Amino acid sequence: MTPNVFFTGGPEDWARYETPLRDALAAEGIAARVSPDCPDPAAVDYLVFLPGTVSDFTPFTRARAVLSLWAGVETITGNPTLTQPLARMVDDSLTEGMVEYVTGHVLRHHLGIDGFIGATRWEKAVPPLARDRRVTVLGLGELGSACATALAALRFDVAGWSRRPRRIAGITCLSGQEGLQQALERAEILVLLLPRTPETEDILNPQSIAALPPGAVVINPGRGALIDEAALLAALDDGHLGHATLDTFRTEPLPADHPFWQHPRVTVTPHIAAETRPETASRVIAANIRRAEAGAPLLYRVDRAAGY
Amino acid sequence: MTPNVFFTGGPEDWARYETPLRDALAAEGIAARVSPDCPDPAAVDYLVFLPGTVSDFTPFTRARAVLSLWAGVETITGNPTLTQPLARMVDDSLTEGMVEYVTGHVLRHHLGIDGFIGATRWEKAVPPLARDRRVTVLGLGELGSACATALAALRFDVAGWSRRPRRIAGITCLSGQEGLQQALERAEILVLLLPRTPETEDILNPQSIAALPPGAVVINPGRGALIDEAALLAALDDGHLGHATLDTFRTEPLPADHPFWQHPRVTVTPHIAAETRPETASRVIAANIRRAEAGAPLLYRVDRAAGY
Repeated sequence: MTPNVFFTGGPEDWARYETPLRDALAAEGIAARVSPDCPDPAAVDYLVFLPGTVSDFTPFTRARAVLSLWAGVETITGNPTLTQPLARMVDDSLTEGMVEYVTGHVLRHHLGIDGFIGATRWEKAVPPLARDRRVTVLGLGELGSACATALAALRFDVAGWSRRPRRIAGITCLSGQEGLQQALERAEILVLLLPRTPETEDILNPQSIAALPPGAVVINPGRGALIDEAALLAALDDGHLGHATLDTFRTEPLPADHPFWQHPRVTVTPHIAAETRPETASRVIAANIRRAEAGAPLLYRVDRAAGY
Repeated sequence: MTPNVFFTGGPEDWARYETPLRDALAAEGIAARVSPDCPDPAAVDYLVFLPGTVSDFTPFTRARAVLSLWAGVETITGNPTLTQPLARMVDDSLTEGMVEYVTGHVLRHHLGIDGFIGATRWEKAVPPLARDRRVTVLGLGELGSACATALAALRFDVAGWSRRPRRIAGITCLSGQEGLQQALERAEILVLLLPRTPETEDILNPQSIAALPPGAVVINPGRGALIDEAALLAALDDGHLGHATLDTFRTEPLPADHPFWQHPRVTVTPHIAAETRPETASRVIAANIRRAEAGAPLLYRVDRAAGY
């Protein structure tokens, strides 16, 4: 029987996913009907799910799985109507995208590239070499350690900080509260890649910002809640901080009237650092549909009691 | 006896070099008098030389060496008044600086960073991954192969082209005229790192530019003469090329009325990609003064008959 796959996203998402999803299913040898329309929920076999779309899963009585396109599933793990198996997105390309974003923006600030874009005068300003530039990465999970390692390969002087002690070749690994102070004091460029937990919320606050060296640059592709926004803006305004390049925010999309948009020392990127790529994510979805069709257990199935 | 070291550069150069040079000499245990002033040429023991300064070396009757801060010494090797031993600058950090410049600007264009600087709207635009981005490096000498290797380490899909066949791990190496055509046709981002020779002059011309894929970006930290400027401007104007980031020019400093300055698709950087760094260059100078003081042969001494 040809399974029915319901893509829960809107027209914009569908435009990005239609071809990659059809290609990936074909590559797995699955003849499925895939559509962003759902005239009959009871006829749906698989939901390809985007957060903020379906909130009541009750009508999907036949659905064999809800396959999330996002890694973060915290918005639906507590949904009592979701009784179908749920799989989250695990896509290795997320790490690659993050490494590219972090490396690109660290080099941008290191080289002072912004100052040359649109420049109209020959003014020699030679940056130090990477080996004389101290970068600190807060968070040494999969993303943080991959970024720290890529920066060290470019010879940046890299320190990483994590709550518990870690060892990573080529990285000065710091931990605990005292380690955090050291990590901040050396950070000419600070990259935030911590998860959001009660301990990490507002980890960038008036006290920790004051510990950064004058002119420090903050790059946050981690979580919006890591930063006390008022404290960040105050430090940018008084010149203590040189720049902030931010990819994640407490409210997304960042509201049009948010002061970050107009601030000359802030660069906003629209949560793209570790964006799910339609091509790679579609392959993960198709592989899971193939498994389910064959009666095999789902990859990346979420344990709803644990929440991940 | 305390040697007298005459720094031939002007006040701007002296401001950059004074501290690093004094530090480097101190680190070598040399108590020298270093100054940008020269009341008595006959009392000078060493010249730390910048091109375009001293042109008559006759009065420096006691000088034991002319130590160039530049790698290129072609402007003085033919100077008949220069009878003192001449050493050129060989500084490994030049390669590091070039790798940082090239990696930084390739990532900048790959990630579309310019579009986010000063943006005031949340508009999602996700770049492909580096593994799906084709970069071509023309020139596989020391600088070209170092840059190609660094880009491949970031998983870019890298091809390199050289006149004679080369082999470099992880790089698609092309050569010869047919290889050049292939190298150009795939170049979403093209990096020019060829030396200037009669064969490479204007290598980027109307024909080779037409071979590049639409929207291609050109990065030139090599030599200004590699590019037919009129052809480049025409291709930027008609939209065939997406952008040009240029660090070297036929005339430097780039004249104030040059069309590159105002062109929205051109970024000018002031010949900084492989700039001699005062810290590292000063160490080389100090090491050579120590050698000369000890009666040892100079490092990087120029064979004036050969010209290098």
